[in-house]
Amino acid sequence: MTDAPTAAAGALPDPPAYFRAHVFVCCNRRPDGHRRGSCAARGSEALRDYMKVRAKELGLKGVRVNQAGCLDRCEFGPALVIYPEGVWYSPKTREDVDAILQAHLLEGGRARHLMLTEHDLPPPKV
Amino acid sequence: MTDAPTAAAGALPDPPAYFRAHVFVCCNRRPDGHRRGSCAARGSEALRDYMKVRAKELGLKGVRVNQAGCLDRCEFGPALVIYPEGVWYSPKTREDVDAILQAHLLEGGRARHLMLTEHDLPPPKV
Repeated sequence: MTDAPTAAAGALPDPPAYFRAHVFVCCNRRPDGHRRGSCAARGSEALRDYMKVRAKELGLKGVRVNQAGCLDRCEFGPALVIYPEGVWYSPKTREDVDAILQAHLLEGGRARHLMLTEHDLPPPKV
Repeated sequence: MTDAPTAAAGALPDPPAYFRAHVFVCCNRRPDGHRRGSCAARGSEALRDYMKVRAKELGLKGVRVNQAGCLDRCEFGPALVIYPEGVWYSPKTREDVDAILQAHLLEGGRARHLMLTEHDLPPPKV
């Protein structure tokens, strides 16, 4: 079976992927002192800027780095997610961003020590 | 072969998908008169707000609607993309958003008349 897993039987195939890798960096900012904090308060905006510049410098084709609103993993931020894989990372430094660019986007592997997992969950809503 | 297509042979599997469907609505705004226009100038912010409210009202589980920075398909905006499928839509009205919620997120199909394809390309850079 060669259909895309999301295509219903007999359905037209989806268009080809528009981007090979689409990175979304949470840049949500909450007021200081908010119980969940926020990715921007944890420095995500500078990391987004750095990732955009480095992705361009590396000549990565078909890769787009975007900012996004709150991805709801605030406690583990700065949070970013790479699609279509749906792999999440929490880079704290420029070196972490470099590691993600190298391992995931250049080599097609994973920067496993920086990944979020299904165990990184927000606290229950109050 | 049951490995995820992105996992190298012998690599650990990725964590399970954190969201079943992750929607990114471009809310980039350019100055009036910009040659490419922008999704916000085409009304994307109100459509994002509506989609967030309706997704909640419909009780869609595992679906998150986020705003995003410029997705670079400005001429065809308002643009949104749904991952992990990587399917792009251009909703102009609330009724279009309803059609996407119903066909794609509730029924697992496609609102095909609203989809962007590989032929919807930005003009060459000047």
